[in-house]
Amino acid sequence: MTTKPEMSAADIAKAVAGGQLSALDATEAALARIKQHDAILNAFTDVTADRARARATAIDADIAAGKTVGPLAGVPFAVKNLFDVAGLPTRAGSKINRDLAPAKRDATLIERMEAAGAVLVGALNMGEYAYDFTGENVHDGPSRNPHDTTRMSGGSSGGSGSAVGGALVPLALGSDTNGSIRVPSSFCGIFGLKPTYGRLSRARSFPFVASLDHLGPFARSVTDLALAYDAMQGPDADDGACTTRGLEPTLPLLANPVSDLRIAIAGGHFQKNVFPEAVEAVSRVAKALGATKVIDVPEASRARAAAYVITTTEGASLHLDRLRMRPNDFDPAVRDRLIAGAMVPAALVDRAQKFRRWYRAQLAELFKSVDVLLAPATPCTAPKLGQVNFNLDGVELPVRANIGIHTQPISFIGLPVVAVPVPLEPLPIGVQIIAAPWREDVALRVAYALEQMGVVAAPAPRGL
Amino acid sequence: MTTKPEMSAADIAKAVAGGQLSALDATEAALARIKQHDAILNAFTDVTADRARARATAIDADIAAGKTVGPLAGVPFAVKNLFDVAGLPTRAGSKINRDLAPAKRDATLIERMEAAGAVLVGALNMGEYAYDFTGENVHDGPSRNPHDTTRMSGGSSGGSGSAVGGALVPLALGSDTNGSIRVPSSFCGIFGLKPTYGRLSRARSFPFVASLDHLGPFARSVTDLALAYDAMQGPDADDGACTTRGLEPTLPLLANPVSDLRIAIAGGHFQKNVFPEAVEAVSRVAKALGATKVIDVPEASRARAAAYVITTTEGASLHLDRLRMRPNDFDPAVRDRLIAGAMVPAALVDRAQKFRRWYRAQLAELFKSVDVLLAPATPCTAPKLGQVNFNLDGVELPVRANIGIHTQPISFIGLPVVAVPVPLEPLPIGVQIIAAPWREDVALRVAYALEQMGVVAAPAPRGL
Repeated sequence: MTTKPEMSAADIAKAVAGGQLSALDATEAALARIKQHDAILNAFTDVTADRARARATAIDADIAAGKTVGPLAGVPFAVKNLFDVAGLPTRAGSKINRDLAPAKRDATLIERMEAAGAVLVGALNMGEYAYDFTGENVHDGPSRNPHDTTRMSGGSSGGSGSAVGGALVPLALGSDTNGSIRVPSSFCGIFGLKPTYGRLSRARSFPFVASLDHLGPFARSVTDLALAYDAMQGPDADDGACTTRGLEPTLPLLANPVSDLRIAIAGGHFQKNVFPEAVEAVSRVAKALGATKVIDVPEASRARAAAYVITTTEGASLHLDRLRMRPNDFDPAVRDRLIAGAMVPAALVDRAQKFRRWYRAQLAELFKSVDVLLAPATPCTAPKLGQVNFNLDGVELPVRANIGIHTQPISFIGLPVVAVPVPLEPLPIGVQIIAAPWREDVALRVAYALEQMGVVAAPAPRGL
Repeated sequence: MTTKPEMSAADIAKAVAGGQLSALDATEAALARIKQHDAILNAFTDVTADRARARATAIDADIAAGKTVGPLAGVPFAVKNLFDVAGLPTRAGSKINRDLAPAKRDATLIERMEAAGAVLVGALNMGEYAYDFTGENVHDGPSRNPHDTTRMSGGSSGGSGSAVGGALVPLALGSDTNGSIRVPSSFCGIFGLKPTYGRLSRARSFPFVASLDHLGPFARSVTDLALAYDAMQGPDADDGACTTRGLEPTLPLLANPVSDLRIAIAGGHFQKNVFPEAVEAVSRVAKALGATKVIDVPEASRARAAAYVITTTEGASLHLDRLRMRPNDFDPAVRDRLIAGAMVPAALVDRAQKFRRWYRAQLAELFKSVDVLLAPATPCTAPKLGQVNFNLDGVELPVRANIGIHTQPISFIGLPVVAVPVPLEPLPIGVQIIAAPWREDVALRVAYALEQMGVVAAPAPRGL
């Protein structure tokens, strides 16, 4: 059996466990595909071929010895380069971090993926220090959109979006502070899960904004997304913020009917600030689910502003020493954002945090009467690389700062979201399936139902 | 039976419950004493005589009817004027707040004191918006030290210290953000308890710095302090921060031996920055307890700096609208501190908060090997009213800003402290008995043992 680029993680794992495909062949196929396409896509900053072959060989040996293998046996995956990979400096998209000592131990989520049988094949390009929505990187060059390589992959997990959208690997991991999983999912036409804040361990990953950072998986099917998510769940003594829930497998729940769920369309802020493609995408998803009710999310625009204030100031705090010591080694645009953040008065941030508590309470109340909210993942399909402005609702605005206009008010209070790809022509665009805290299962079920109906799907990478 | 000023809360309650003293007589005695001395002490801003008489009469009626009365039956008490008292605007030491509508309901702690039989006789002077260590107030005039009325009561709970130290009432309540219970306790020669952060409900009190504010009692004996504390303990649905512990009565534990406790003297920061009186006081307490080990509290000076940064910025956030709308109605010195706080960059505050987590972990580690730390409550005895500078360790420094030099590093991470009065001549001075989180019982036991040994005691108010 030979692999095809569109082969899912589930199919690979099944074939590997069943002996029809070796883990090494699955790995070599991924490495070959990376070699073939990554010169264009620029998704990878490191390919860990030796490690991957050793790992795959060990899995094949286990299978030959009759040992049980995990649900991701032989599945190649890659991680945003802010995850610690033993032996590599954790660059987090920066030039400065390349001078760090190599990581001694993998990030917890890599360990869990590999414990389930997955095979790490490399580290992925990303926006500098994750302060980005475009996937552009001045040090490494931009990761490119697999459907049109003149366009943005989205950021900051741009390499993750590009690698999975381009079918170089079936699974990737990324991080989402203000939208950095959902934006590349939307632009690259794939599924992405930003779990509830605190759900997945962040141990041994490079941070950005402690109170907003989430890690999560990308895939080209909901089943693959759930497989990866289930493999990574569970408390971790190495991450104090990740102790709230045990393992709550979602894979067995995916096919449960969604007809009992109360699904509403997010109104107000989420129906403004959009291009027609985003309206069309939400409309298709809502129609398929029979959702007609529009619910206003109170003060969503203010939530976005507050998320920005907290992001820029906490980011500045994190990078203060680097800004002082190595200003010229930053991406100049990132540096300017951080310096601006370093000067925001604390009294304003305190007010943003107070507002955040109020807003969280409002949405907790809202989720008593709905199970799922639908909202655009991005206001538009992937812009051209280097595009600076766009016209949003009649106002000329900077692209980068506004790509996350619909993701920020959601991650601000840590709600779980599955971004689902609506395969519009000529470019796909994502819709956010937003659930109540700790109800990733609900968002995944809705995504699965939409996939079964054919409303959402990861399109083949036509740009390659 | 007639009351004497030095009569303790325990004795009053016993006499009232036993029928030897009426609650009304106890109340009238307090009102008379207030009338006699408060023109000088200026501890009270409101005397709630009608309310107190009605309440006392009701208690007497209960006793006459053979009903059971609480452990504080007939005990007069007063509260810092940042506690809501039904019918009064909660002025919090300010001019501006006098325009607020009268409070509709008493603060939770007042309700609990009265449920135990205590009788509220009034509201007490304090530093404006609790941003004070002196007890001076430009709107109401200073509350005065009962041992020398030309001297400071200490702040910000100056009226509480003055009223209890002057024996106008046996019990008072105050608040402590950076030392505002422990400082007046030290200057006025009384006992004060700043409980663990989150232990006592703050519902319906005017805040200052949410993450640092504590409420607690003052008394002239440890038994009275424990009586008041026990009456106020327990979770409160009206205060989300106060849900962590149930009622853990300390009164029955007071006489337990302390010989099993590991008691150490706080070194470094706490042995510097002191006048000889503070050294003498800690030395007497340590000697009586047989404590010789000196333990350095790592980075205590930095903890104090971080407490200041958080205080000034959160305080500024709280008062931002008032600073904009009514700048001229502030105490000019408080206004300047708040305006300065409004301009502190958030990135610095974020670092202060990160440091705080580190420091909390360090002290958690430290408390594995000790049960109690001893430290000065103030660097000096009560300064003269209006005194601007003092010479601390050879450096000329502002008095107000440095009175809390030894209290701030402790409240910064919410540790429970009993401030005990060492009756030095000519003025008393306090020592902090610091315990691990949630171990108020340990601090109270040590205070009680010291009181039994005659090392600590509230001196008679010689200034009256």
